[in-house]
Amino acid sequence: MFSENNAAAGVTFPRGFKAAGVKAGIKKSGNLDVAMIYTEKTAAIAGVFTKNAVAAAPVLVSKEVVKTGTAHAIVANAGCANACTGQTGLDNAHKMAAIAAAELGCDASDVCVGSTGIIGVNLPMDKMEAGIKAAAAELSENGSVNAGNAIITTDTYSKACSFAKKIGGKEVRFGAIAKGSGMIQPNMATMLCYITTDANISSKLLQKALSDIVEVSFNMISVDGDMSTNDTVLVMANGEAGNEEIIEGTADYDIFYDALKSICQELSKRIAADGEGATKFLTINVNGTKSFEDAKTIAMSVAKSPLVKTAFFGEDPNWGRVICAVGYAGVPMEPEKTVISFGGIPVYANGLGAEFDEDALKNVMSEHDIVIDIEMGLGDASATVWSCDFSYEYVKINGEYHT
Amino acid sequence: MFSENNAAAGVTFPRGFKAAGVKAGIKKSGNLDVAMIYTEKTAAIAGVFTKNAVAAAPVLVSKEVVKTGTAHAIVANAGCANACTGQTGLDNAHKMAAIAAAELGCDASDVCVGSTGIIGVNLPMDKMEAGIKAAAAELSENGSVNAGNAIITTDTYSKACSFAKKIGGKEVRFGAIAKGSGMIQPNMATMLCYITTDANISSKLLQKALSDIVEVSFNMISVDGDMSTNDTVLVMANGEAGNEEIIEGTADYDIFYDALKSICQELSKRIAADGEGATKFLTINVNGTKSFEDAKTIAMSVAKSPLVKTAFFGEDPNWGRVICAVGYAGVPMEPEKTVISFGGIPVYANGLGAEFDEDALKNVMSEHDIVIDIEMGLGDASATVWSCDFSYEYVKINGEYHT
Repeated sequence: MFSENNAAAGVTFPRGFKAAGVKAGIKKSGNLDVAMIYTEKTAAIAGVFTKNAVAAAPVLVSKEVVKTGTAHAIVANAGCANACTGQTGLDNAHKMAAIAAAELGCDASDVCVGSTGIIGVNLPMDKMEAGIKAAAAELSENGSVNAGNAIITTDTYSKACSFAKKIGGKEVRFGAIAKGSGMIQPNMATMLCYITTDANISSKLLQKALSDIVEVSFNMISVDGDMSTNDTVLVMANGEAGNEEIIEGTADYDIFYDALKSICQELSKRIAADGEGATKFLTINVNGTKSFEDAKTIAMSVAKSPLVKTAFFGEDPNWGRVICAVGYAGVPMEPEKTVISFGGIPVYANGLGAEFDEDALKNVMSEHDIVIDIEMGLGDASATVWSCDFSYEYVKINGEYHT
Repeated sequence: MFSENNAAAGVTFPRGFKAAGVKAGIKKSGNLDVAMIYTEKTAAIAGVFTKNAVAAAPVLVSKEVVKTGTAHAIVANAGCANACTGQTGLDNAHKMAAIAAAELGCDASDVCVGSTGIIGVNLPMDKMEAGIKAAAAELSENGSVNAGNAIITTDTYSKACSFAKKIGGKEVRFGAIAKGSGMIQPNMATMLCYITTDANISSKLLQKALSDIVEVSFNMISVDGDMSTNDTVLVMANGEAGNEEIIEGTADYDIFYDALKSICQELSKRIAADGEGATKFLTINVNGTKSFEDAKTIAMSVAKSPLVKTAFFGEDPNWGRVICAVGYAGVPMEPEKTVISFGGIPVYANGLGAEFDEDALKNVMSEHDIVIDIEMGLGDASATVWSCDFSYEYVKINGEYHT
């Protein structure tokens, strides 16, 4: 479903979308740093943004665009977050949209903007203007890879995917590019995720689907527990697939919802796996609680524990730290009913450490992908959180950088 | 007030208390590992324990002793936490108390027990029995240093202090030993703090004072955000000072309360400063919130942020990470009203980075002790949290250990 070829197609796989990524000199490395995604046909738009009270200027501007329900383009840069930049920052975010709109022949209110990078520094608007113009000139159906690379910061690779589903007898396509990492390296913010689809769906229903899906995808990952000032997920749906409009409560909606959820969960996993300095990808399943919230709280408590994260870095099957993090999560638990397994091997049960095959467990701990199952025995609800370990490299990336 | 001499006196500075620390072979290092504190005269006792739902056996046993209101002794070991050990662990914790009681000629219900060390392993009761008997035989008024060293795990030094206050015309003495560290190294649990005083005070009032004080001392430190299965603070007050019983609402109570608070806050600071791998001691003052809880939530959000902690390890004045952690704390904040200062030098104000003297700020960041002031401008409440940085050494200590 997420083959390499499709990943390359990314946001331009759905019909009618073009993309580009150019070098505007904003990243110190000189790499690609301005991305653009464009649909000539007006798209329904939906968005979910950071809940951080210190929201960056591009977040404020994009929220206004999402309120209108329609958009033609997204323009984004890496290397400068345009956060904590006051009125100048807000003016610059509006200028980004206006410059792009003039090039594309649409209204500025149809252009979402995004920025990721250093906090507290103003965008170099001369470079931005040249970059946006260059991106507009380079828009193509092969531009998704460059666009994906233009929004990454400390990510080790760009995350992208695309695939198709039959909806209402038509082939409906989906594509996405995303960046994550940890969450904010050297003041480098942020999770950014841009999804395109040629489905025909109203902005209202698109927003409902996205808001629900974010709760079981992007809100279920934890790299270091920090939430950036710039986190943004946007979906544009331009209707080019020619399907009948997708209506809530229908089988078509269910297919659409599942497709969008697949994309969001897949990208969430990749963002967690590519956390700063990560050497392990941890899937934490909590089952048997009375509510989803309880299960999520327990899974997040385990995912955020530095002791758990360093233990997995050291490949140590340290179930004591896991049961400890379950115990202080602050939700109902009964130690005697709780069962903890690593890679399917029970390591804690009946209030005690379990007997296990040491060689088999050693193999589990040496894998890159490790599944932690926590069975609470108190109900029917469950939740899954994706996380990574804590390594020397994390401390290095985040401790040795100087602002 | 906390001179070196007094620290050596520790828990035996108050009249009528003896202590000992012996080598029982429970720590792999062969260091001191069984501690005892004893008062022949019956003491009022109060305690505060971990809120972790997976509480260790010694916590359960000590809670029962505290309920009776009186005690004669505390016996504790390091090297084995007696946590996640089921009924056997509970039996062993009771046996620790019974063995000590037989040696001391008191009831087992007058002996609190404590353990810190590896989770999920049973106490070696033959070694414990010999150790407890040896400790009882060695009890002396010079035994506090050994007792303090017998309860430490990855601490780089034992925390102790003692001092006197005039209460009701009498000299009332206080002493304490404590261990902290991170919070749980290699499954090595735990904050343990044992306080003695010769004040005459009821167990009920002692408990009230202690419960209040823990909220502004031990609950205001964060090394890595993990809460152990064994955390315990105990106070014994044997009345040997000969003061009139301290009554609530009097000036005597205020003096007593402030004295106990001084001890608890001083030990809290030392535990934070000696966090695993710590190279910096961070004091985070949040002022100008509408409630203490809001201020504490913000300060803890900053204290627990791995990005903030690694920035201070790298001596990087990265205010962007601090304002970001303030922003996602989830309590009311207005970016434009917030002022952040490092070592008294404003680095963020009016929603923007502030102009500052780079050399002066560099000096601040190079110090071992760094004060972070966060002024919220929304009210009159405040809170202070003590924390430390995140270093390579933390990852090393916690990642390279193998269970």
